[in-house]
Amino acid sequence: MAGSTYGNNFKITTWGESHGKAVGVVIDGCPAGLKLSESDIQPFLDRRKPGTNALSTPRSEDDEVEILSGVFEGKTTGTPISMMIRNKTQISADYSEISSKYRPGHADYSFDSKYGFRDYRGGGRSSGRETAARVCAGAVAMLILKELGIKVYAYTKAIGPVVLDEKDINLNLLYKTPSMMPNTEADEKACDYVEKLKDEQDSTGGIIECVVTGLPAGIGEPVFDKLDASVSKAVMSIGAVKAVEIGDGIKVSSARGSENNDGFFMDNGKVCKITNHSGGTLGGMSDSSPLLIRAHVKPTPSIFKKQQTVTSTHTDTTIEIKGRHDPVIVPRAVVVTESMVAITVLDLMMSNMSARLDRMIDFYKN
Amino acid sequence: MAGSTYGNNFKITTWGESHGKAVGVVIDGCPAGLKLSESDIQPFLDRRKPGTNALSTPRSEDDEVEILSGVFEGKTTGTPISMMIRNKTQISADYSEISSKYRPGHADYSFDSKYGFRDYRGGGRSSGRETAARVCAGAVAMLILKELGIKVYAYTKAIGPVVLDEKDINLNLLYKTPSMMPNTEADEKACDYVEKLKDEQDSTGGIIECVVTGLPAGIGEPVFDKLDASVSKAVMSIGAVKAVEIGDGIKVSSARGSENNDGFFMDNGKVCKITNHSGGTLGGMSDSSPLLIRAHVKPTPSIFKKQQTVTSTHTDTTIEIKGRHDPVIVPRAVVVTESMVAITVLDLMMSNMSARLDRMIDFYKN
Amino acid sequence: MAGSTYGNNFKITTWGESHGKAVGVVIDGCPAGLKLSESDIQPFLDRRKPGTNALSTPRSEDDEVEILSGVFEGKTTGTPISMMIRNKTQISADYSEISSKYRPGHADYSFDSKYGFRDYRGGGRSSGRETAARVCAGAVAMLILKELGIKVYAYTKAIGPVVLDEKDINLNLLYKTPSMMPNTEADEKACDYVEKLKDEQDSTGGIIECVVTGLPAGIGEPVFDKLDASVSKAVMSIGAVKAVEIGDGIKVSSARGSENNDGFFMDNGKVCKITNHSGGTLGGMSDSSPLLIRAHVKPTPSIFKKQQTVTSTHTDTTIEIKGRHDPVIVPRAVVVTESMVAITVLDLMMSNMSARLDRMIDFYKN
Amino acid sequence: MAGSTYGNNFKITTWGESHGKAVGVVIDGCPAGLKLSESDIQPFLDRRKPGTNALSTPRSEDDEVEILSGVFEGKTTGTPISMMIRNKTQISADYSEISSKYRPGHADYSFDSKYGFRDYRGGGRSSGRETAARVCAGAVAMLILKELGIKVYAYTKAIGPVVLDEKDINLNLLYKTPSMMPNTEADEKACDYVEKLKDEQDSTGGIIECVVTGLPAGIGEPVFDKLDASVSKAVMSIGAVKAVEIGDGIKVSSARGSENNDGFFMDNGKVCKITNHSGGTLGGMSDSSPLLIRAHVKPTPSIFKKQQTVTSTHTDTTIEIKGRHDPVIVPRAVVVTESMVAITVLDLMMSNMSARLDRMIDFYKN
Repeated sequence: MAGSTYGNNFKITTWGESHGKAVGVVIDGCPAGLKLSESDIQPFLDRRKPGTNALSTPRSEDDEVEILSGVFEGKTTGTPISMMIRNKTQISADYSEISSKYRPGHADYSFDSKYGFRDYRGGGRSSGRETAARVCAGAVAMLILKELGIKVYAYTKAIGPVVLDEKDINLNLLYKTPSMMPNTEADEKACDYVEKLKDEQDSTGGIIECVVTGLPAGIGEPVFDKLDASVSKAVMSIGAVKAVEIGDGIKVSSARGSENNDGFFMDNGKVCKITNHSGGTLGGMSDSSPLLIRAHVKPTPSIFKKQQTVTSTHTDTTIEIKGRHDPVIVPRAVVVTESMVAITVLDLMMSNMSARLDRMIDFYKN
Repeated sequence: MAGSTYGNNFKITTWGESHGKAVGVVIDGCPAGLKLSESDIQPFLDRRKPGTNALSTPRSEDDEVEILSGVFEGKTTGTPISMMIRNKTQISADYSEISSKYRPGHADYSFDSKYGFRDYRGGGRSSGRETAARVCAGAVAMLILKELGIKVYAYTKAIGPVVLDEKDINLNLLYKTPSMMPNTEADEKACDYVEKLKDEQDSTGGIIECVVTGLPAGIGEPVFDKLDASVSKAVMSIGAVKAVEIGDGIKVSSARGSENNDGFFMDNGKVCKITNHSGGTLGGMSDSSPLLIRAHVKPTPSIFKKQQTVTSTHTDTTIEIKGRHDPVIVPRAVVVTESMVAITVLDLMMSNMSARLDRMIDFYKN
Repeated sequence: MAGSTYGNNFKITTWGESHGKAVGVVIDGCPAGLKLSESDIQPFLDRRKPGTNALSTPRSEDDEVEILSGVFEGKTTGTPISMMIRNKTQISADYSEISSKYRPGHADYSFDSKYGFRDYRGGGRSSGRETAARVCAGAVAMLILKELGIKVYAYTKAIGPVVLDEKDINLNLLYKTPSMMPNTEADEKACDYVEKLKDEQDSTGGIIECVVTGLPAGIGEPVFDKLDASVSKAVMSIGAVKAVEIGDGIKVSSARGSENNDGFFMDNGKVCKITNHSGGTLGGMSDSSPLLIRAHVKPTPSIFKKQQTVTSTHTDTTIEIKGRHDPVIVPRAVVVTESMVAITVLDLMMSNMSARLDRMIDFYKN
Repeated sequence: MAGSTYGNNFKITTWGESHGKAVGVVIDGCPAGLKLSESDIQPFLDRRKPGTNALSTPRSEDDEVEILSGVFEGKTTGTPISMMIRNKTQISADYSEISSKYRPGHADYSFDSKYGFRDYRGGGRSSGRETAARVCAGAVAMLILKELGIKVYAYTKAIGPVVLDEKDINLNLLYKTPSMMPNTEADEKACDYVEKLKDEQDSTGGIIECVVTGLPAGIGEPVFDKLDASVSKAVMSIGAVKAVEIGDGIKVSSARGSENNDGFFMDNGKVCKITNHSGGTLGGMSDSSPLLIRAHVKPTPSIFKKQQTVTSTHTDTTIEIKGRHDPVIVPRAVVVTESMVAITVLDLMMSNMSARLDRMIDFYKN
């Protein structure tokens, strides 16, 4: 079980290293009949692009996706969709430090432990660059979900101490600020904070919140493949995420049952919930309220301060990381979070189709 | 993808409803040669047993496991291990309320939405009773991990507002207090709090902390099947868990890189980390520090207060839940958390064996 | 990947040894809403039962299945269906020979090589008894397929030199003769042949033919999970099967394209094939003609003649197998073949439901 | 379950259509440390290349593989290996016939039935061109197996009525004749036969035999994932294969137990088999004899004779296929067969590593 394949029905396999020839993804199991071209995917990729602002690295990463298979006359055919993004800046600086020392907070040591050696150029397979491939697949998943009436969106909830209050979220500003916080004031504060950290050769973490609306009730499997469990794995598989919350999340541990339970009521013939502490899932299946996920993202481990570490030949040393690094990963990880959630939700919707015999009979008899 | 099977190499399949004939588990892929009998598993099951104290229901659940296959002359044979626990109290009270109304915080509505109907007796498949089967499998996983020098343990970190400080953890008291808090004073406070809630017909949540020691570096797969991502799914698949943290967890979102990075140093020829903010995993692979997981558990949804809800035929109503219910799930879920973590870690250790060609050659040439 | 689990959507896990406490199966992913009780499954199990005739062993195997979970008020609930058959004759004769010597044609040597030791009682996990569990799962699959308008049936095509011609198949005699040949004369010849072999302390092989009718076109996946490839694995996984043919099978290697291609024509608005050399599958997907599979079954390896072999401590020796053994496996394997084919076809029909976006939209919007 | 992914540990995903931009494969789970470059793979690809002889099409297919990821400083890193072959001749002739009519013996009708439409250019995803991707992955598998002391090879056993006798196989001629028959005389006869068929606008089938030597005993899983069952699926998933035999294959159905059983004997401290009717597998696990597989390949369905068929809008018609088509697929499918067998065997060897606890302890304690 090699770990670069995800999903059972909408199955994606990503490949590529940060300083190899390219990164890419193969989607196996994409339903046939979706209108799809490179221009449908590019906007998602562009949201992962480093900006010209304080929050991201000044590298120029003009990621352009190429669809290599699975689309014919503008529509998906049901066969594997292979997508590739060429790495433009393969020529790389001096890797002598990185190649011989383990960077704190990075996967260098664990990679060497597992495989005996590693592609040390810019993080190799563990680089955030791998997530570009996830975004290509996530874009396709979101386009399909849209056809099914389901919307997936995410935004920055916090950067360091700057936390956006729920009441201050302005969805009209979604994706429109450098910090990806949908609020102008909060965005400015966040940018100021990051600017300050840059001066101090430091970095910061943050919180991403993701919402799925329009999901019918009953999606997810009751025991191990619960909707919330599956989504947690999906989001926790994004490199820097160290905690995942569903609905009220960590608050539940200090709450009472009478506070945490969501009562039901009827509204226009539809079963509704009075509150949504559960975050849209009961018993591992969607409960018709919006699905709410929060991901806590750690600070960029690449900081310019001197750090204590060891060499790959096991002697004590120090390291000073150079190069261009985002002082905060959060804004660029927003679309990655959406992507992983969308892929997971779509995958579970596909498997859900055979849950009931009467619906199988309808499907095959008509 | 039906969702009652978990794991790729050490693959478990649980079955059974709370008021059906039995619950059970089949382990497919257990390595041959482990000494195993019912008496090796029973102690784990007993830790899941409701006690005679304030924190759990006065039901008598004498769960006795029967091994039906996969063991010969006291050792596992490599073939599937089938284990079963008969349900003793199948005769059940009046289910007319539960059968026709959706209990807030339970899976009733989502189950009906998915399958069209449900086994409404005592939660059916969504009952916590299903976890008894997980514990049987977890026991086997922990016995194997022990042979590999790896220890998995968990305890109650918090019950409602009563939070156990790290410095107050006394591992000699592990599993020895009613609350499963390894500290006498904190345990007493927790018990008092729960007693008070019972009087108020309410329930509470809490936090479980789980630790894995002895894990070699490099376990887990770099991209989707990261150690932390896999463990998160495992723990989040336990019914009442609403948030999972690895290492510093939610704290990382407000931390700086210089605070969050763990430096390395050499100690007796071994690579060590100065701190363990990462919680034992870097880039999705173990980093030789202890693996640290925290699960936030919601309050028992079955409370005796009157709650607003709807009937399964979609009219507004209220419900007053009766019967015997634990006012807090946390203490009994401690061993379930250990079980899910142990199964996941073992599974990843099995798949890790083919990561390097030189080790494959050693394995097959000797 | 342990190997006792089969299927992706309709996923079965079998367990149990021939002389352990029981054998059983868990079906995970059975659609909700199928009418099911033990009496629906028993007739399939009874067809696997040794008869009172020449062709099978005089053992009394009154296999009685018990459903332990997944059925409520007479219908499947969508949760795992656990079924168990207690082994009645666990008390066993003298196993000193079998335990210390490798029986030719059996799995004794390969089992010891893999696991270091084995449950030597009556074949243990490699015994044909394991197939009783497959039949329980196959029965459920066939009941579902029936609701979808699909019929799976099989019969004995040959026993040793006695081969049933296609034109002599009388479907009214399906399952009604001791040899499972649907023709009275051929059946008598087969019985005579087996009787003669018994006198000679020998055994014989044979051919099973399996047919699936009513399958809509397009079932199966184009590349690796082809309908024919999947069915081949399913049938080849039955212990004694050594060759599998689809449609014209081995004849294709000496045929010409002009003979082997099946032309199409329209019949009452339906696309039909003039011939069915393909055996119902084109490009790995069903082509609306009946699916035709032939399995070549080897002679029972347990023969009473003296055979040359080695001990498990690696010295040359001879063995004379005693006990009760069927001189031919074929008649009892007919229902096992049907079962494996039915499980495979149903599994592929379930995954096929998400192949087209327009149908997903229909499914979820209505 | 989309069907373009194969394997559990050594997991391959192929993609690409015959007349799209490229075909390719991603290998996820390749062990780290294998010396690998394009030049290691090219010789395998070249064996799939159409020759300049009678048996294949005069197209010029200079397939050149490009490794896009997973290799660093000449060695595999353990991360996904992405390989791509650009399609050189995308400019295609007139597809009006193929697009609107179902070719007999092809997947046109079943594809349309499944997905609603298809990429009709040259077979699209169902084209034999997809197997070029399999060969790239198979090459890697064979290179690893070689390091483990295991050899996989195949040859043409028959073309139409020209059958090569076992005693006439000259392994020095392996891969050296146009027909891939390792015997000069038989090869000439085969070529003559094919030449004649070409004149008659017809095609022929044939038999491929594949051998695996050096396999340790115990590889394969006892129940569903048997070595023979897994290999059968692998080989049957090659487009034109309609029957698979293991060892004596179809002969077993008319054999007696006393003829079919292979006795054991000791040779220099090693357990050996007197004969190899079983074809190297007992109870689904390797038995230390060579693994023997035979695949029966159907005649190329693209023949130039006029054939009866229907249009995709469901009216009766006839079709005369034009273009360049191999009159026999067999010689080019030899390396594809080796590839699928090698991938399967390696995958099972990887999963076998965790079969025994004592070996796991050795692995992790040393």
